[in-house]
Amino acid sequence: MKYNFGAGPCILPQEVFEQAAASVLDYNGLSILEISHRSADFVKEMEEARNNVKKALNVPEGYTVLFIQGGASLGFLIAAMNMAGKHKKAAYVNTGVWATNAIKEAENAGIEVVEIASSKDKAFNYIPEIKNIPEDIDYLHYTSNNTIAGTQFHSIPETSVPLVCDMSSDIFSKPIDVSKFALIYAGAQKNLGPAGATLYIVKDSFLGNSSLPLPTYLNLKVHADKDSMFNTPPVFSVYVSNLNLKHLLKNGGVESMEKINQEKADLLYTEIDNNPNFVGTAEKNSRSLMNITFKLTDENKKERFDKLWNEAQIIGLKGHRSVGGYRASIYNALPLESVKVLVDVLKSL
Amino acid sequence: MKYNFGAGPCILPQEVFEQAAASVLDYNGLSILEISHRSADFVKEMEEARNNVKKALNVPEGYTVLFIQGGASLGFLIAAMNMAGKHKKAAYVNTGVWATNAIKEAENAGIEVVEIASSKDKAFNYIPEIKNIPEDIDYLHYTSNNTIAGTQFHSIPETSVPLVCDMSSDIFSKPIDVSKFALIYAGAQKNLGPAGATLYIVKDSFLGNSSLPLPTYLNLKVHADKDSMFNTPPVFSVYVSNLNLKHLLKNGGVESMEKINQEKADLLYTEIDNNPNFVGTAEKNSRSLMNITFKLTDENKKERFDKLWNEAQIIGLKGHRSVGGYRASIYNALPLESVKVLVDVLKSL
Repeated sequence: MKYNFGAGPCILPQEVFEQAAASVLDYNGLSILEISHRSADFVKEMEEARNNVKKALNVPEGYTVLFIQGGASLGFLIAAMNMAGKHKKAAYVNTGVWATNAIKEAENAGIEVVEIASSKDKAFNYIPEIKNIPEDIDYLHYTSNNTIAGTQFHSIPETSVPLVCDMSSDIFSKPIDVSKFALIYAGAQKNLGPAGATLYIVKDSFLGNSSLPLPTYLNLKVHADKDSMFNTPPVFSVYVSNLNLKHLLKNGGVESMEKINQEKADLLYTEIDNNPNFVGTAEKNSRSLMNITFKLTDENKKERFDKLWNEAQIIGLKGHRSVGGYRASIYNALPLESVKVLVDVLKSL
Repeated sequence: MKYNFGAGPCILPQEVFEQAAASVLDYNGLSILEISHRSADFVKEMEEARNNVKKALNVPEGYTVLFIQGGASLGFLIAAMNMAGKHKKAAYVNTGVWATNAIKEAENAGIEVVEIASSKDKAFNYIPEIKNIPEDIDYLHYTSNNTIAGTQFHSIPETSVPLVCDMSSDIFSKPIDVSKFALIYAGAQKNLGPAGATLYIVKDSFLGNSSLPLPTYLNLKVHADKDSMFNTPPVFSVYVSNLNLKHLLKNGGVESMEKINQEKADLLYTEIDNNPNFVGTAEKNSRSLMNITFKLTDENKKERFDKLWNEAQIIGLKGHRSVGGYRASIYNALPLESVKVLVDVLKSL
């Protein structure tokens, strides 16, 4: 038994792994890996997956759910190109590496970027306040959770401009009001499914309205018009995502996840705050419920602490190389039990 | 037992399915679906997969192997954008739907396309002769195998300009002289692995030399500089591709595959040619060894023939909607035994 605190690709429910493995051997008489994406069976899986996203997030009418490839890294470009309007100008909130990359790709797409808020001055350890949103912009973009520094938006920015969000690392961890967004995108490999699929939830009125010429694959309308089957989709990633969505819906949905995730985070943050050996990396009111970052107060204890958690069969606790320290990623599928094991290790130092 | 003649995603070796399923449950103590792409284990898998591509195709020094996402449909764009040189002009051979899409994406990238040969006049049922290649072009692009019409290039076009090829549906089916190419790309889901990964084999001298501004994800040099780990790769697709490459190398490699594929194709084409109930769709000297297309000579026998092959547990035999008739895809992993079953069905009509 290993306790997987990895930042992603990360743990999924054991039941999902078992169902996925069984289907690699036998899915209606074939391997799930050899079925045609045009087969009735897979068309049904794709439709179910898209509908289960809608169910799980209570997506209102007028939105389309898509699975595309390329991760959020291609999503940065797709978001900018599809959301470009008459201004070819957008506001971005810079909360870390992923937001910085999103800004870069918007610029690569020919968008003039206004960085309206940034926490770069403190190594991105807080969520900056958003003030003075310009009016002559096509959209406002932010990254809901910063996996590296361990910060998270705890409310949706108030704005009248179209809102675009990279939710790769906290989607499905809590309810969200989708109606407030023009576009949400997220790599699958945290709370959704295996790496290789990227989720898009796009408001239909923004499909086909870009002011930029769009290559076919980068055009969300192309994917929407083909029910997310414009070309061969990442069949297995979508299939396992659907297994995981069904597991989520069966177990109380995102409302239930939010409670459990809060409980897990409280347990760990409380120990970090009370234990003189550790200090949290992120500012308290910006703390992420998904990626809990912390450091030793005395680096001389590093060897002993590393030995302790390794011996406890904990993996994936090393902090991102740009931040150092430690990072406990406690996504949906990480059991409360695993957090208790980690807390005990912290106590034992 | 089903006989899977599907055009892709398609059959892979049973042994690969078994290893893949086992690893979904337990890969060094975790599920392969929950391991970090930065873990030592996966870094090793990625390196092995890239090296096994080199071994399998005898890739010479000076080439880089990459796994990216997006399928050949994004590959059309990536190929054009990365190969754009001083002319911003390229020659394309139009042999069907995929070649047509490749042309469209090159144009979307801002490339002036010269269609130097086409078989559109006969519904793409032959490989056109290539004559008069202009000199003021950056590259010549062709599609080695046309899955829909069932045609295939049986030699590499002779040219002094950089050669680019979409080999999605026949790569690893036979030896190829990689040194003749500047860029080869291929969706994984035929002879390589599960859908979700796309293979690129690029001559290093073409990396970073595009005359176009490249968005980050579409820049092959970015992926090459990061050893194909610029962002989270499609972990499972790459892992299973590596399993399949190991299986290929253990079983005689592409030389062995070529012999078996020729044997399978000969068996089926001979029956089609000798059986008065059937006629081949493609011209004889352009016939594909991967996708064997044929039609009934008497459409009144359709109901009886469809009943016969369905009863024999054959699946995936329906022709592409744009061509009609039948298509038997006999990729590497399809056993000779399956072809014999199909031939028996043809005989029994």
